[in-house]
Amino acid sequence: MSGPTTVTAAILVIGDEILSGRTKDKNIGYITEYLTRVGIDVREARIVPDVEEEIVAALNALRARHDYVLTTGGIGPTHDDITADSVGRAFGVPVGEDPRIIALMLERYSPTDLTPARRRMARVPQGADLIENPISRVPGFRIDNVYVMAGVPSIMQTMLDFAVKTMKTGVAMLMETIEAGGVPEGRYGDALATIAAEHPETSIGSYPSFKDGRFANQIVVRGKDDAAVAAAKTAVEAMLASMTADLKPL
Amino acid sequence: MSGPTTVTAAILVIGDEILSGRTKDKNIGYITEYLTRVGIDVREARIVPDVEEEIVAALNALRARHDYVLTTGGIGPTHDDITADSVGRAFGVPVGEDPRIIALMLERYSPTDLTPARRRMARVPQGADLIENPISRVPGFRIDNVYVMAGVPSIMQTMLDFAVKTMKTGVAMLMETIEAGGVPEGRYGDALATIAAEHPETSIGSYPSFKDGRFANQIVVRGKDDAAVAAAKTAVEAMLASMTADLKPL
Repeated sequence: MSGPTTVTAAILVIGDEILSGRTKDKNIGYITEYLTRVGIDVREARIVPDVEEEIVAALNALRARHDYVLTTGGIGPTHDDITADSVGRAFGVPVGEDPRIIALMLERYSPTDLTPARRRMARVPQGADLIENPISRVPGFRIDNVYVMAGVPSIMQTMLDFAVKTMKTGVAMLMETIEAGGVPEGRYGDALATIAAEHPETSIGSYPSFKDGRFANQIVVRGKDDAAVAAAKTAVEAMLASMTADLKPL
Repeated sequence: MSGPTTVTAAILVIGDEILSGRTKDKNIGYITEYLTRVGIDVREARIVPDVEEEIVAALNALRARHDYVLTTGGIGPTHDDITADSVGRAFGVPVGEDPRIIALMLERYSPTDLTPARRRMARVPQGADLIENPISRVPGFRIDNVYVMAGVPSIMQTMLDFAVKTMKTGVAMLMETIEAGGVPEGRYGDALATIAAEHPETSIGSYPSFKDGRFANQIVVRGKDDAAVAAAKTAVEAMLASMTADLKPL
């Protein structure tokens, strides 16, 4: 499942509010789905608190391992917004006020409204490129393979549109979902393992869900080669057709 | 914000389906909120794919750093369910079929229905305790400070109820939310930083949200000491009362 056209990414979500449960993260699901669609494989995601050492350590681990790292959160004007400084420290580069961002802010704020707090949002690591923010103007930024975006989902989403345009993309992952139609996982598990072994160009997963007291299983075949995915799908369907449904879910 | 009553935890979500965006994780938000309520501080969360080396590396990093690690996903009957083996490898202990689980399964399945796939669900690392599963019976397990739970949210949630009973809990985090009432972050950011510095026993965050074209900011004061949280809240409210609302969000 890897090769010359594989592009990988990791997501780093920054914020105490996510780890306390106060805010439910919506960015990981959005980014993973988006990147998968354009052929970038998300291999890992981490959520860390607003603590510089934690952000630096996670960022350095992830940026060494993946083509891209996308961060969300911590780029606003308040004291708990420490992402820019943490990214600067991770790269060992100074962080300073960017005149391009000040100019963007002056389109929105009068000079007297440009409080020290707001000026914090203009601080980026030296050498960073900006990531456009059509909603509230203050941009995210990119340094090397790290994309730093807002935490507010609607703003993050517009930044992501812009950011992805600058990324190399791989062959998109194809995904076929097959409803198991009442056949429990425990009945098809062995046969599915055989099919998975016989179709090494694909990745096959089985996902039970439980709703209103009933289980429903889905089998998902993923891969980057059309014919390989189609062949595995056919094998799964033939296997399921040979089995009987059952009230037991697993 | 730490002390003798601080109990920490990390969450490890295991599954390709989360990293492809196919399934939107609902467990992190649930677990963080639950543990925060009982006084356990979640300090980190990671999402890793169904790859043994990745699971082992993440688990060993997290279990060394935190009082507890809670994992979700990968304990079903299919070939992509490799959590038990990965946990065993992380601890360096053998993984084998547990007669207690086989007995539980025989309450649900006839002996002929106990397929090899289903028997996979009885495999746990040597020395593990079981975590009850009232919904589909097959348990999760605990080894040392690691709690291994199902990925299906409703099952995970009942396992969590059971698991938390065996954890030491700390002093619950108190949380006060103050609506900024239209005052932009960029206006109160400097004053809020001063308040945060003056109330070191609390952690103060500012969270903008954006909906239907409008921003709404909330300031959250967190801490474990009643009086300290109340004092910081009063200071924030007095600060906001001295400011005027504004249409700019940040």
